[in-house]
Amino acid sequence: MALIVQKYGGSSVGSIERIRNVARRVAYHARQGNRMVVVLSAMSGETNRLLGLAKELSDHPDPRELDAVASTGEQVTVGLLAIALQAMGLKAKSYSGGQVRVHTDSAFTKARILDINRGNIERDLDNGVIVVVTGFQGVDKDGNVTTLGRGGSDTSAVALAAALEADECQIYTDVDGVYTTDPRIVHDARRLDTVTFEEMLEMASLGSKVLQIRSVEFAGKYKVKLRVLSSLDDPESNAPGTLITYEENQVMEEAIISGIAYARDEAKISVMGVEDRPGIAYTLLGPVADANIDVDMIVQNIGESGHTDFSFTVNNTEFDKALAVLNREHDAGKFKARTILGDKNICKVSVVGIGMRTHAGIASKAFRALAEEGINIQMISTSEIKISVVIEEKYLELAVRILHKAFELDKAPA
Amino acid sequence: MALIVQKYGGSSVGSIERIRNVARRVAYHARQGNRMVVVLSAMSGETNRLLGLAKELSDHPDPRELDAVASTGEQVTVGLLAIALQAMGLKAKSYSGGQVRVHTDSAFTKARILDINRGNIERDLDNGVIVVVTGFQGVDKDGNVTTLGRGGSDTSAVALAAALEADECQIYTDVDGVYTTDPRIVHDARRLDTVTFEEMLEMASLGSKVLQIRSVEFAGKYKVKLRVLSSLDDPESNAPGTLITYEENQVMEEAIISGIAYARDEAKISVMGVEDRPGIAYTLLGPVADANIDVDMIVQNIGESGHTDFSFTVNNTEFDKALAVLNREHDAGKFKARTILGDKNICKVSVVGIGMRTHAGIASKAFRALAEEGINIQMISTSEIKISVVIEEKYLELAVRILHKAFELDKAPA
Repeated sequence: MALIVQKYGGSSVGSIERIRNVARRVAYHARQGNRMVVVLSAMSGETNRLLGLAKELSDHPDPRELDAVASTGEQVTVGLLAIALQAMGLKAKSYSGGQVRVHTDSAFTKARILDINRGNIERDLDNGVIVVVTGFQGVDKDGNVTTLGRGGSDTSAVALAAALEADECQIYTDVDGVYTTDPRIVHDARRLDTVTFEEMLEMASLGSKVLQIRSVEFAGKYKVKLRVLSSLDDPESNAPGTLITYEENQVMEEAIISGIAYARDEAKISVMGVEDRPGIAYTLLGPVADANIDVDMIVQNIGESGHTDFSFTVNNTEFDKALAVLNREHDAGKFKARTILGDKNICKVSVVGIGMRTHAGIASKAFRALAEEGINIQMISTSEIKISVVIEEKYLELAVRILHKAFELDKAPA
Repeated sequence: MALIVQKYGGSSVGSIERIRNVARRVAYHARQGNRMVVVLSAMSGETNRLLGLAKELSDHPDPRELDAVASTGEQVTVGLLAIALQAMGLKAKSYSGGQVRVHTDSAFTKARILDINRGNIERDLDNGVIVVVTGFQGVDKDGNVTTLGRGGSDTSAVALAAALEADECQIYTDVDGVYTTDPRIVHDARRLDTVTFEEMLEMASLGSKVLQIRSVEFAGKYKVKLRVLSSLDDPESNAPGTLITYEENQVMEEAIISGIAYARDEAKISVMGVEDRPGIAYTLLGPVADANIDVDMIVQNIGESGHTDFSFTVNNTEFDKALAVLNREHDAGKFKARTILGDKNICKVSVVGIGMRTHAGIASKAFRALAEEGINIQMISTSEIKISVVIEEKYLELAVRILHKAFELDKAPA
């Protein structure tokens, strides 16, 4: 008897009929003899509706209260799925994050899971009960309801799979797996049967919407077997989706590059002519991190005459806040700089592939492809398995198509 | 510094603008120097919407899951009110029933409050925080979310007022107090400045929608000073509403009758020709009570030749269930009866007044008034302070008007 954790997103539970479909799929897997834990998001649009109500009352609503309000969306869907499963003759029980003690820190609206109490869930599973748990939320040590931030339901599912030592964590989405790039941009994008954990991590961090990055990190940390599947397929089709693997030799040798990822919602901040002294990176980014703003790419150019230019990217929604923090620190004399610039009209495009490690020339091939189309590169950042470039936002689709073609991703590996 | 518990119903928090109005009223009382605890219902219509979703999935949804789903409505409004209060510069914090440990039994959808933990709330009040608590819900000893049944938010408010030893519990509704009868039926119905606890109890049990009966019982048990007020009045008008008093001498001597109440959603069940033996009432009503059905009026006529007719009323929604229980018991040979009859087209009209105790002739006056209009009385039940009659439903308004006039309730007491 395998223990399977399945996660369904907002569009999969967006209506009564869709909740019934989820129930059918869960029932199919349960009747195959599996022990089932199901993690759900709120009905699509519901979290935004709830947050919208809060925003009508205040421009800066208290994060604790935002979480109290937003967390109700999943509490509705888990109860409804339990009812739907019971109507099919199965035993099922719903739990909120607080009830199964998904214990988090107190960073409201972006909390991190610390641990999960397996007691309730295992007792139910032993009794043949399908356990339905709210995604996206937990409870801090003082009993306050917290949420994990957007996409946090994936993280909830992986964390549960890790805590329960599940045999597989299946993330159901509206696509049938991980693709070489966004099929809406490149029509001959291909579904990958497997992708390595590291590649997936890069894809997720680069804005591929299939999986939330924190869930991939969590999966890697606890070696959770993660599979991306489509909630639109027939429940009994046994479509394989994409499996995230932890062993590189499972990947075909010929596949140097796995995919092209992009992130549209980035913004760039540059601190120009800042003094080039030890500790300057911390001086600039420490206060940004303290304000709970996630920084993505960081680039520091070689300085001359004791000064350097320092650039980093943040999510668009945190651009104003990050800029304000830097200006505040600057005005307080914490650092000196010629000027602080910001640009929201940028995007990031990345080439990802574990094979890149042992193959030279990938970067130059990518840069040449972009240059031939006259696309100017503003920032470059590389890791062992990815090359990311920041370019003007309007070139996003063009750049993705060029790179997908340059690396022949439309062709299946030999 | 008085401690005031205020409760606002669904229509008072039915939109963002109305939530702002509630915030203004709460703020007014807080700025007068009071310590404030606010109890809220869900936005009007929301609980029904949520229960409707569940009913779409199952004809008999699991009560535990129904409560999990339905309890989210108040969790949204309390968070929103806290945000609205904060936007006005006040300190505020929301809590679900589970968070402040409104501890109930496990009778899902109609749970009863066992105790309330005052710790969190008092700490917040001491810090000048306005505490906003979900009505209608609690948590059982296993951590399952429970709801108190319709109107349970009044009970939550009174229970909190009792636990916190509040100076006053103010129930805000869409009427400005308790009236001599329903103003929609009798246009010259009068608002009462005070009404005794016992009269209020009868009014509530008789279907007066102003206060839920359990909340009045709770208030009486703990001598909570309860006041009914309108949420539509200007916050600063200081309208007095109706105060529920526990001392009879606060009531003017001349007021023999305080009001005419009615209940439209009653149904009658009669067991005809049942053997007249000791224990027969328990034989009939025990299984009904075991099925968690509330029985209202009970009438047993004098029997002849060892048989009697036994009638009782239940809420319309529980009529089918009660009838099924009786037929099951009958078919199982638990009692013998000539026939079991049911009638949903009835209503109950009651004359209520503490003065009735010391004034003879009230019953006959009421019966004569009804007889003069040719209204047939099907059942009669009396207590020290009320006389109730069951009549055909179509005569409801007529009977209320006749009785209001017969007891001159349109005229203010001397």
